[in-house]
Amino acid sequence: MEPSSELKKVLSTIREFIEKEIIPLEPLFLNHQYAEMMTHLNEKRQMAKSLGFWLPQISQEYGGMGLTLVEHGMVSEILGRSILGHYALNCQAPDAGNMEILIEHGTPEQKEKYLQPLLAGDIRSCFSMTEPENPGSNPTWMSTTAVKDGDDYIISGNKWFSTGAEGANFAIVMAITDPKAEKYQRASQIIVPVDTSGFHLVRKTSVMGERGAGWASHCEITYDHVRVPQTNRLGPEGSGFTIAQERLGPGRIHHCMRWIGICERSFDLMCEHATLREVAPGHPLAEQQTIQNWIAESRAEINAARLMVLDAAHKIDQKGQYAAREEVGLIKFHVAGVLQRVLDRALQTHGALGVTDETPIAYWFRHERAARIYDGADEVHKRSVARRILRRYAS
Amino acid sequence: MEPSSELKKVLSTIREFIEKEIIPLEPLFLNHQYAEMMTHLNEKRQMAKSLGFWLPQISQEYGGMGLTLVEHGMVSEILGRSILGHYALNCQAPDAGNMEILIEHGTPEQKEKYLQPLLAGDIRSCFSMTEPENPGSNPTWMSTTAVKDGDDYIISGNKWFSTGAEGANFAIVMAITDPKAEKYQRASQIIVPVDTSGFHLVRKTSVMGERGAGWASHCEITYDHVRVPQTNRLGPEGSGFTIAQERLGPGRIHHCMRWIGICERSFDLMCEHATLREVAPGHPLAEQQTIQNWIAESRAEINAARLMVLDAAHKIDQKGQYAAREEVGLIKFHVAGVLQRVLDRALQTHGALGVTDETPIAYWFRHERAARIYDGADEVHKRSVARRILRRYAS
Amino acid sequence: MEPSSELKKVLSTIREFIEKEIIPLEPLFLNHQYAEMMTHLNEKRQMAKSLGFWLPQISQEYGGMGLTLVEHGMVSEILGRSILGHYALNCQAPDAGNMEILIEHGTPEQKEKYLQPLLAGDIRSCFSMTEPENPGSNPTWMSTTAVKDGDDYIISGNKWFSTGAEGANFAIVMAITDPKAEKYQRASQIIVPVDTSGFHLVRKTSVMGERGAGWASHCEITYDHVRVPQTNRLGPEGSGFTIAQERLGPGRIHHCMRWIGICERSFDLMCEHATLREVAPGHPLAEQQTIQNWIAESRAEINAARLMVLDAAHKIDQKGQYAAREEVGLIKFHVAGVLQRVLDRALQTHGALGVTDETPIAYWFRHERAARIYDGADEVHKRSVARRILRRYAS
Amino acid sequence: MEPSSELKKVLSTIREFIEKEIIPLEPLFLNHQYAEMMTHLNEKRQMAKSLGFWLPQISQEYGGMGLTLVEHGMVSEILGRSILGHYALNCQAPDAGNMEILIEHGTPEQKEKYLQPLLAGDIRSCFSMTEPENPGSNPTWMSTTAVKDGDDYIISGNKWFSTGAEGANFAIVMAITDPKAEKYQRASQIIVPVDTSGFHLVRKTSVMGERGAGWASHCEITYDHVRVPQTNRLGPEGSGFTIAQERLGPGRIHHCMRWIGICERSFDLMCEHATLREVAPGHPLAEQQTIQNWIAESRAEINAARLMVLDAAHKIDQKGQYAAREEVGLIKFHVAGVLQRVLDRALQTHGALGVTDETPIAYWFRHERAARIYDGADEVHKRSVARRILRRYAS
Repeated sequence: MEPSSELKKVLSTIREFIEKEIIPLEPLFLNHQYAEMMTHLNEKRQMAKSLGFWLPQISQEYGGMGLTLVEHGMVSEILGRSILGHYALNCQAPDAGNMEILIEHGTPEQKEKYLQPLLAGDIRSCFSMTEPENPGSNPTWMSTTAVKDGDDYIISGNKWFSTGAEGANFAIVMAITDPKAEKYQRASQIIVPVDTSGFHLVRKTSVMGERGAGWASHCEITYDHVRVPQTNRLGPEGSGFTIAQERLGPGRIHHCMRWIGICERSFDLMCEHATLREVAPGHPLAEQQTIQNWIAESRAEINAARLMVLDAAHKIDQKGQYAAREEVGLIKFHVAGVLQRVLDRALQTHGALGVTDETPIAYWFRHERAARIYDGADEVHKRSVARRILRRYAS
Repeated sequence: MEPSSELKKVLSTIREFIEKEIIPLEPLFLNHQYAEMMTHLNEKRQMAKSLGFWLPQISQEYGGMGLTLVEHGMVSEILGRSILGHYALNCQAPDAGNMEILIEHGTPEQKEKYLQPLLAGDIRSCFSMTEPENPGSNPTWMSTTAVKDGDDYIISGNKWFSTGAEGANFAIVMAITDPKAEKYQRASQIIVPVDTSGFHLVRKTSVMGERGAGWASHCEITYDHVRVPQTNRLGPEGSGFTIAQERLGPGRIHHCMRWIGICERSFDLMCEHATLREVAPGHPLAEQQTIQNWIAESRAEINAARLMVLDAAHKIDQKGQYAAREEVGLIKFHVAGVLQRVLDRALQTHGALGVTDETPIAYWFRHERAARIYDGADEVHKRSVARRILRRYAS
Repeated sequence: MEPSSELKKVLSTIREFIEKEIIPLEPLFLNHQYAEMMTHLNEKRQMAKSLGFWLPQISQEYGGMGLTLVEHGMVSEILGRSILGHYALNCQAPDAGNMEILIEHGTPEQKEKYLQPLLAGDIRSCFSMTEPENPGSNPTWMSTTAVKDGDDYIISGNKWFSTGAEGANFAIVMAITDPKAEKYQRASQIIVPVDTSGFHLVRKTSVMGERGAGWASHCEITYDHVRVPQTNRLGPEGSGFTIAQERLGPGRIHHCMRWIGICERSFDLMCEHATLREVAPGHPLAEQQTIQNWIAESRAEINAARLMVLDAAHKIDQKGQYAAREEVGLIKFHVAGVLQRVLDRALQTHGALGVTDETPIAYWFRHERAARIYDGADEVHKRSVARRILRRYAS
Repeated sequence: MEPSSELKKVLSTIREFIEKEIIPLEPLFLNHQYAEMMTHLNEKRQMAKSLGFWLPQISQEYGGMGLTLVEHGMVSEILGRSILGHYALNCQAPDAGNMEILIEHGTPEQKEKYLQPLLAGDIRSCFSMTEPENPGSNPTWMSTTAVKDGDDYIISGNKWFSTGAEGANFAIVMAITDPKAEKYQRASQIIVPVDTSGFHLVRKTSVMGERGAGWASHCEITYDHVRVPQTNRLGPEGSGFTIAQERLGPGRIHHCMRWIGICERSFDLMCEHATLREVAPGHPLAEQQTIQNWIAESRAEINAARLMVLDAAHKIDQKGQYAAREEVGLIKFHVAGVLQRVLDRALQTHGALGVTDETPIAYWFRHERAARIYDGADEVHKRSVARRILRRYAS
């Protein structure tokens, strides 16, 4: 699982780019100066693009870096070191996933209209799946409907946690197209341009005290009799869940490697602070055994988690994501747990400084608490993995 | 430790007051509509005062409710159920502690000028102790100085986490008055009106993404050659630490019982949500064994923690806080840990809703992370309690 | 919850008795020299009896110390400091519980024949409830039957974990007397003298590598058409579960306070070893922050757990055990968890010595692992407490 | 890290051998019928040898399987599934390590006399390092001395935890040969045949209630003026620690992979029991969410730990153990922790059965508690790894 020497060079250059160009923008972000930050960040994006660091998760055919999942995982880890890393290379959620859907399932027209500007970084998109009144753990329990009317669908429903809807050009909406179909064939994914009549961005949900802005916001959207042509549907009718499932394997690798990157940055900050901060003249925090315990435990947990994610990515690369379903379920909750513990220790090491926004740790502490929830709560993954395992023991 | 039937009635009325009058204001607070919220909250304050629910921690002589520490603990628990509870009865930090200092150590003039309006709720105050460049765990390592000049002190230094400085009338500043004195006699506490020349509120520190406002803000203050008369000193010169120590015992009881209140409210929210939220038609979350485990574990931990705090309060009531130093150290880190675990479970139970600001859980999750840091980090308390215990085993 | 000054004196004398007379016998026990140990222990028993320390859980009417449950809890805590403590005062399981059953439900003849010699310490008894093929978590799922035949019952079935059956005079057997009755009224408790034909002590089960002996053994018993008169039944037919339930509240207080005693002894051993053992010349283990953390955390957990158990005992004393069901369920799993953690830390503090039988810690580490299983596994208690709590939130 | 197809076949055959031939002997071992068990086990040893499964850790030159460390790790994992697995292939501690020392540092005479019969499985050996009065965490603090007298050494001292000394042919003793030398050059390793005058096997230490027998015993040995020729020294004088250090890297890989094997077997037992055991008719334990959580968490932890150990082994294979010191320190404590948690869950899943010796789980639960102690306590490894890491952050 050692990267090739070529990839090593790429990783090292990207890391330098992140350190020098992207991390200095974090204070603007943490200070809610979104507009000013975006001006700079978009410049950095161009810089990244011109360096060839663009769309690491996309094949070269579509203008991406053409990496394997393992390789992209390693890039994602480096990008994850900054809150702003993934945006800089245009591989942030949910655009990255939406690109994959459009590449796999988009018609030539859909690709022309939606995929190309997305790949170019000219527009952003969002994904409207979760509903406030229905549990995410039961994906077939969904209230939003898309009813046929002539050549159109009329979409009605209420969605939230549509990340990045503010400023997006279009949404991909999951809606029930046939409530009587077999459980997993009821829904379809449909493209809805945000300027369609009836598309209402109700509010940016306040999450952990912040409403954020642009790609860093979670939006509540009402679809009030939104009319779009049926040609906006992605794939065949009823394929909504199948398409969503396909995204999950690679999507979880991306998340998990991003979390590893967060862990690594936080680990560095913890070690640096422990080395610099003195608790008495000449006695840095690093001398304290409790701090040493945290460092050793964090290092062990991060290493183990990292190998586990790369191993799952490797299995997907080799055998496809169906074969790796168990591994993918396991990393999702396991790495989220490691992330929370590492952040907690890094924060505590910083003392009062740790709860301020002088470092990114407090941001991750509060916002990545959701890592144990989004994309399937821990409990859902545990149950589902365990059931699959237990079947092997039933005689 | 059962409350008297009279106290039970008081507690029940206060609880109703919190439920009906105070909790409905939380959304304004969580939505950063501080000014509007404060208008309402100040009305509720008058209501509380007129009901006789005012200054529960203060003796009747000074207009308070004259409760024992155990009794005040029980009130604090109820108030803690809302983010806004303590302010409503004028027993919020740091005013509550500053009142106690002024009562114990204030001159008649100081009481007249600073204590009376504080008790009346007409002004607010802050406490300037922590310094960004020096660790809070070593209270004798302090850079701020107060140098005598004629009848005055000239105070110079930099403080942060001066909670509530925005809008405060005065600060009590901890400063070194004699750097050559014995370690714990170097500092004094000095009253500094905020309109004194050289008092600069540099910024409200961004904590967990929020700068807050008024009493709910943490401020960085520069004392730039601030001149105040020596008569502004509290107690004899060099008594700064001794006075600070005196506050600690009762102060920690207040904190811990407030945390118990937070636990109780979060526990209620968790149980209510589990009962209402269905994961499949007719199947509430409450049926899931994982949720049941969290409820049982939380209930056990809260009950045990609560008894432990009341037991420490009782010991202070009976034998003074010196006798209860071990108990006070133990509750500080133990209850903070329970708080974090209970909040974590309550948040997870709510799923995506849990990270939003639709409930107060996410607020407490992020801001009460500091419970393991402020007023002595866990590690400091553990070390200090353990050393005291170990002395008993050394022959 | 402070003991009266009279009780304090009693507790202090019992503690001295345990330290001086009982603890010195532990090495014989740990070295499997049961016969020799019992000779000494029975002498100590006489000593305890003559000092008036006898049957602390039994009313004075029946020759006991007539303590409240809170008071007995405090005695049990002291006795728990030694592996042999409870036997010394004739309040070891299952005799203690069997005495309570006979006092509450025994006929005058049963009391004469079984209770009196048990109270006197002349005989021992066992309790046959658990069955290897049926889960203890479902008490109504039981295979052992007692079929009427004339004036007799004919009992058939297989039981294990009949603690102390080796050398016992009689067993109280739980058997189905009416399989068609309402779920909780199917079973009865029946006295079976061990010399009855068909009573086979099949084996002492090897538990954690040891088969033990006498009262310290767990036996598998086959009841092969054992014929006893129906007058051996305790209480009315079908009352087996009700009677068992009655024992549970006080029984769990006894267990939990015994566990607190184990925690206290282990805590002392941990602190003593940390103070004496040097890791480098002049540097005792006690200087290490990790050890200090364990000491502080253990102290906090033990204190909190202890208050919680005494609070539950107090509630039973005041309002009866039905009112305290929730508290009793909570302490069972919570204190078992504290016990395991404290033992683990105490063992680790001792290093290689900790896994040897030079201290009682390794014995408790392995044998009290069962504390999370016997008398209801953690999971069963958590579920049952949570369900009771959740009912209060269902509208 | 995928095994070659050839190795896969070997692993699969060894696994079958362990399942069919070795595991059936465990009950004899658990029932303390050591002599009978050994008769059978020695037959199985011959069978393994004749199948070519012999000395997996040794090069082909010396009659072993000539595996890389990664490959041997995978064999060790399979062997670890049984308590008796490593003995069957003659790669049990401490013989395996002693063989490596003799191969690296033995003279032709030493190899002839001690190594050859050890490789052949004709004799056993022990390693005498740990001293009861000195902490293992400080290897330079040692009381045993070897004083030159003519061509001999006269060795005096007291050792314990000399595993397998009962029935061993010789011991390798660590003794101070030059107390004035530089700290890590004071000691030498010296071969002492057990029939040398002055070699006293004082006792088999009772560990977790068992004294064991033969290779499965931990012995206390007094070296009372034991005279051996200086030609019995291994390597140059003062090289004792260096030689010991060399063993540590590979030795820890062996241990950790053995632990992974224990985890895997326990995991299987847990899943099988959960599937078979019903809590109500038709409702196996496997349906319970708590059990599912344990299965998912265990699977994740085992997978991650396994990859981490293989990664460390790979690094040693590629770059030598010095380069892998950090990885080796991390796996030691991390995997020991995983082992303890997995065993705890497997035990709890079995309920009362779990504490009996009907399965090997209780054996591992009690005896592998020492995994967090032997070969360096967790705390020692954490400290030492953390210090190495922190040096990279000190500017």
